[in-house]
Amino acid sequence: MTGSSFGKLFKVTIWGESHGPAVGMVLEGCPAGLKIDIADVQRELNRRRPGQSSITTNREEKDQVIFLSGLFEEITTGAPISAMVENKDQRSQDYEHLEKSYRPSHADFTYQEKYGLRDYRGGGRSSARETVGRVIAGSIAKQFLKTFGIEIIAWASQIGEIVMPDQDQKEISYEQVESNIVRCPDIKTAKKMQKLIEQVRSEGDTIGGIISCRLKGVPSGLGEPVFDKLHADLGKAMLSINAVKGFEYGKGFSCVSLKGSEHNDIFIFDQESKKIKTEKNDSGGIQGGISNGMDINFRVAFKPVSTLMKVQRSIDDEGKEKEIKGKGRHDPCVIPRAIPIVEAMAALTLADHILRNRSSKL
Amino acid sequence: MTGSSFGKLFKVTIWGESHGPAVGMVLEGCPAGLKIDIADVQRELNRRRPGQSSITTNREEKDQVIFLSGLFEEITTGAPISAMVENKDQRSQDYEHLEKSYRPSHADFTYQEKYGLRDYRGGGRSSARETVGRVIAGSIAKQFLKTFGIEIIAWASQIGEIVMPDQDQKEISYEQVESNIVRCPDIKTAKKMQKLIEQVRSEGDTIGGIISCRLKGVPSGLGEPVFDKLHADLGKAMLSINAVKGFEYGKGFSCVSLKGSEHNDIFIFDQESKKIKTEKNDSGGIQGGISNGMDINFRVAFKPVSTLMKVQRSIDDEGKEKEIKGKGRHDPCVIPRAIPIVEAMAALTLADHILRNRSSKL
Amino acid sequence: MTGSSFGKLFKVTIWGESHGPAVGMVLEGCPAGLKIDIADVQRELNRRRPGQSSITTNREEKDQVIFLSGLFEEITTGAPISAMVENKDQRSQDYEHLEKSYRPSHADFTYQEKYGLRDYRGGGRSSARETVGRVIAGSIAKQFLKTFGIEIIAWASQIGEIVMPDQDQKEISYEQVESNIVRCPDIKTAKKMQKLIEQVRSEGDTIGGIISCRLKGVPSGLGEPVFDKLHADLGKAMLSINAVKGFEYGKGFSCVSLKGSEHNDIFIFDQESKKIKTEKNDSGGIQGGISNGMDINFRVAFKPVSTLMKVQRSIDDEGKEKEIKGKGRHDPCVIPRAIPIVEAMAALTLADHILRNRSSKL
Amino acid sequence: MTGSSFGKLFKVTIWGESHGPAVGMVLEGCPAGLKIDIADVQRELNRRRPGQSSITTNREEKDQVIFLSGLFEEITTGAPISAMVENKDQRSQDYEHLEKSYRPSHADFTYQEKYGLRDYRGGGRSSARETVGRVIAGSIAKQFLKTFGIEIIAWASQIGEIVMPDQDQKEISYEQVESNIVRCPDIKTAKKMQKLIEQVRSEGDTIGGIISCRLKGVPSGLGEPVFDKLHADLGKAMLSINAVKGFEYGKGFSCVSLKGSEHNDIFIFDQESKKIKTEKNDSGGIQGGISNGMDINFRVAFKPVSTLMKVQRSIDDEGKEKEIKGKGRHDPCVIPRAIPIVEAMAALTLADHILRNRSSKL
Repeated sequence: MTGSSFGKLFKVTIWGESHGPAVGMVLEGCPAGLKIDIADVQRELNRRRPGQSSITTNREEKDQVIFLSGLFEEITTGAPISAMVENKDQRSQDYEHLEKSYRPSHADFTYQEKYGLRDYRGGGRSSARETVGRVIAGSIAKQFLKTFGIEIIAWASQIGEIVMPDQDQKEISYEQVESNIVRCPDIKTAKKMQKLIEQVRSEGDTIGGIISCRLKGVPSGLGEPVFDKLHADLGKAMLSINAVKGFEYGKGFSCVSLKGSEHNDIFIFDQESKKIKTEKNDSGGIQGGISNGMDINFRVAFKPVSTLMKVQRSIDDEGKEKEIKGKGRHDPCVIPRAIPIVEAMAALTLADHILRNRSSKL
Repeated sequence: MTGSSFGKLFKVTIWGESHGPAVGMVLEGCPAGLKIDIADVQRELNRRRPGQSSITTNREEKDQVIFLSGLFEEITTGAPISAMVENKDQRSQDYEHLEKSYRPSHADFTYQEKYGLRDYRGGGRSSARETVGRVIAGSIAKQFLKTFGIEIIAWASQIGEIVMPDQDQKEISYEQVESNIVRCPDIKTAKKMQKLIEQVRSEGDTIGGIISCRLKGVPSGLGEPVFDKLHADLGKAMLSINAVKGFEYGKGFSCVSLKGSEHNDIFIFDQESKKIKTEKNDSGGIQGGISNGMDINFRVAFKPVSTLMKVQRSIDDEGKEKEIKGKGRHDPCVIPRAIPIVEAMAALTLADHILRNRSSKL
Repeated sequence: MTGSSFGKLFKVTIWGESHGPAVGMVLEGCPAGLKIDIADVQRELNRRRPGQSSITTNREEKDQVIFLSGLFEEITTGAPISAMVENKDQRSQDYEHLEKSYRPSHADFTYQEKYGLRDYRGGGRSSARETVGRVIAGSIAKQFLKTFGIEIIAWASQIGEIVMPDQDQKEISYEQVESNIVRCPDIKTAKKMQKLIEQVRSEGDTIGGIISCRLKGVPSGLGEPVFDKLHADLGKAMLSINAVKGFEYGKGFSCVSLKGSEHNDIFIFDQESKKIKTEKNDSGGIQGGISNGMDINFRVAFKPVSTLMKVQRSIDDEGKEKEIKGKGRHDPCVIPRAIPIVEAMAALTLADHILRNRSSKL
Repeated sequence: MTGSSFGKLFKVTIWGESHGPAVGMVLEGCPAGLKIDIADVQRELNRRRPGQSSITTNREEKDQVIFLSGLFEEITTGAPISAMVENKDQRSQDYEHLEKSYRPSHADFTYQEKYGLRDYRGGGRSSARETVGRVIAGSIAKQFLKTFGIEIIAWASQIGEIVMPDQDQKEISYEQVESNIVRCPDIKTAKKMQKLIEQVRSEGDTIGGIISCRLKGVPSGLGEPVFDKLHADLGKAMLSINAVKGFEYGKGFSCVSLKGSEHNDIFIFDQESKKIKTEKNDSGGIQGGISNGMDINFRVAFKPVSTLMKVQRSIDDEGKEKEIKGKGRHDPCVIPRAIPIVEAMAALTLADHILRNRSSKL
């Protein structure tokens, strides 16, 4: 299993299982001289943490970050940054009935096939608990990006069939996103979304959704031609998050029915900023795989959570039919807690490309 | 620019510009002992080649593959395989008017920003002519995959608003796909699609579309947890292709409005094959980032080609407004020629993961 | 700083500073299904640990290993293995006088130049305390190699001018090496070496030496042509250890004055084992960068430790002259404690090449 | 076989066999904006080329470089640089007798073991003909380094037992090295060396030697802590060259018998240059794995060439004894032609570390 690292120069390696002693990360390549605001790292972890609101799982984890290396007087030294969070509120007994069963649409079966054995407690390595490491690394990346004036903002743009209206036209702030537990910046929509989540939870069921993300202040020139296009790396970053089924940027899937003359984005010279811009930014801030200085926009589709609090049919490892019902503590909708994860992965992708771009010119 | 390599163990490096002497690739990591059918490599290049039909560009390139290393009596030796195609029918004069202009929705501006200079002839490195290298490598990967019984099949599933009906329920063969120049296996739909492409071309315009792809016979266990999930690597592979704006697998974006009880894929024991399967394969053949032995299904959204054969507004490198009209020879729709490229990238991704999976168990 | 990872498939990432809370490692790519003997990991750490004998530093660290992930019931699951050792006996005040001074032949100056700041306590990241991580990972690698019948044995072959005689002709066992605190398998030589080390220590001085290493039971076929030759990767592994100044394998530097007819190693067919061997193994077990099935032999040169317990001239960060005298607790000779480190790095190199070799053939 | 790439950011991939159509390289990551002197690339190839003098093989190859991509008006664009040299003077029939035989101390046996088949003509991939690609890439790297004022100079410092005296104390120039066909800057020594080479050749035999190399003008700060120390990467680069058996830097193996008080390199403040330097540079320009701004010195040991023009015993692939005599055209001593290869590999290592160092600080 060598897929636990992300990035070439700003490179994070994630470790840990749902029911092991801790989860954590090692971040290599963060340049020396960055002052780390540890309270800010903790704040991002709190946005991801279980038990944070009435519509998330009630597994109770404080998720307190512990830094183990790479900082000297809270400033990065260039050495690898190691940090972790201890697992406190495991209830492994909730999973004993799964030792020999495969939960539908989970990774139980495929891990067993791949490795010949598995840590079945809470999904083991396949649990989204590994995203703690992503959020720690991502929050350091965000602090690095802030020194360049880059800001990352993600929000709940769709839950089930409830869609936030006119998102592309609006300025969206962190405060708006954090103003409610769904993390939808439009309060009216947020209320409807919350109601829907509460309803599916009461049925023992779950629901899918879409997270939109906007990257502001990204300089032109990020992204590497051919395979490591900026949107290709962003896409991979997002698709690597548990439960993600689709990624699109700019006009995305909706551009397939457009003509070139409708979709093309005309260059203009903006007299005010004295910069070259495009008229509509339908390109989504990236052209030929390289950022053009405009806002970068993308959308990420999440499936409904697979663990249900009602009975489902399944089979055991000998192929015999049996019934399964979730005993752990689970989210009815992944969107609210996935928002800091989307931001973290976007931050890691941008930070890596900023470092890679340092070698573009002589 | 270090983004020209793809894969960790089955690893291709692509080189070449649209108007340079040649385009090509070096493939490292193909295991020794594979008999290469060179005619088959050429056939794949012919499917990608310009001028192949009435609805593609009429740049006339034979695209004859030349192997330079890595084969001994047409068998792979384990050494890097180097191969190239010479550029014959360049017309660099078609591009001289672009030396100081930025074509809308092209990479002219972003390359200039990133590198401080650019080869403006035919888009230089940003031209889709680099995909010659992908197709050569991909066709070797396909031959490698065939030894495991894996088959890859892609087709035009949507052009503009014309959608092929009931695709998911149908068996689709290579012969059906190749039966028409649009490469849509449903003849009735193909005819409509062809008509639409001809119409937009006559207007000097272009049109977008969707390519669907199915991977058959993939063994369970491919894909690495956390960041290098199989669908994350497939997604990156697809998003790296010129003009791609979105990727989804399984139910994709449509699953966001489903409940868990609707979307979950129940495991069953198939008495006939004595294998564990899922009832609906809504997971798209991948669970927890690892293949489960079912068909893998994904869809790729392509924007309309940016070069129009009609006048567009733009600006030059000093920000002055000017009009631009395509003089080169261009495709009105990228879908028919992109199909072998989608297949090639899928093949490279799978081949890499087959080799990576060899280290999963003791 | 992205140089803290070693290996492509069996890949370790090391973190930690001399005076931070802990030092540790994350090991990715260890195949699933390996039973880990944790007591054995601890035993290797004990061989490296400070304060283990009268001729090592008396910094007192128990160096107790803590496993944080990757094992389930002490068996590897394929997930990254995270482990660490807490730093207990730091005396940071011993280093305060170095905040603005550069110790001769240390990394103080170069770190300051590279990063613009440094953790000066105990050398920070440049301290050999990071080798704790190497030894943990290496001992897991050794256990992996044991399943293939591979054994690694290193020993003190020279301290100062005292050379162990006739080493190449002798079988050398782990027990012999561990029979004395110098770790020289020849007791008579070991005594002389110990006396020399005690003498230089009493002078406040230090002394260099050579570690020889033999890899037994290595199958033929390991190593990748051209750049990743087996001995090139072994050489890099050894040269990456603190204080190493040279590496040679087979006949090494002594072969430069030989003729081809003297040095060439004639192939023979060994009737007993029914295997192809060479007459003298002057090639050192590697030909064309690939193991040939014979014992692999190499030698590593270590400089005398730079920290002296006597006064040395130096300068501060403003270029002013000042006198420096080691206040920390330091080794008079690095050889005895470096032996498990050499073995660890050899084990990591071999483990990586065993996994890489799995893709050589179809 | 994935060992054909070198470097992380300034990254070359080498391809080609001794008796295939061509040998070449793809260089990724060379920054845009570097004017390439192609005549200079050719001059380096001429220094490596067979048949250049009376003491090298008389295989007659012009080795004319052909650039295929990455340059626009002879300036790097940031795109991968592809270049090759065609093989013209192969005589494959010279090798037919080796199809089933293993030449002593060659890679015939180990390639067969690793891959199950091999291209036996001229050693195939194991032939030093692959170094053409290294020299092309290395000469581009040298031109890149020149923009930073870095100069690389290597020379024959020992052939057999003939050693050039007082090398460390002397300034050595490219002109002195190129003043004779042995490439020893001391004319008197060079004559003795040439005589020795001619003598062993007349016996059908070969002889080993040492190449010394000095890197001048290297800025402080290059090299990455822990595993990718500058000398570890230089060591790997050198050990990857055919026939190399050892590497040392600074005082190398000779420092093992020194005391710390003898070996330590005292820092001084050089009033003239206003820079911090060391008194003796016994560290060889690198401390803690990072360059300190002084000259970097290292030495590389080459074994005698294995192919002899006289009869040797060996065995065939069934283990039967047979006699072998070199029929190809071979060098009696590898040193004169290996000097540009040592320089090329040093240049590639430095260029890579210059780019990597760009991410050290904020």
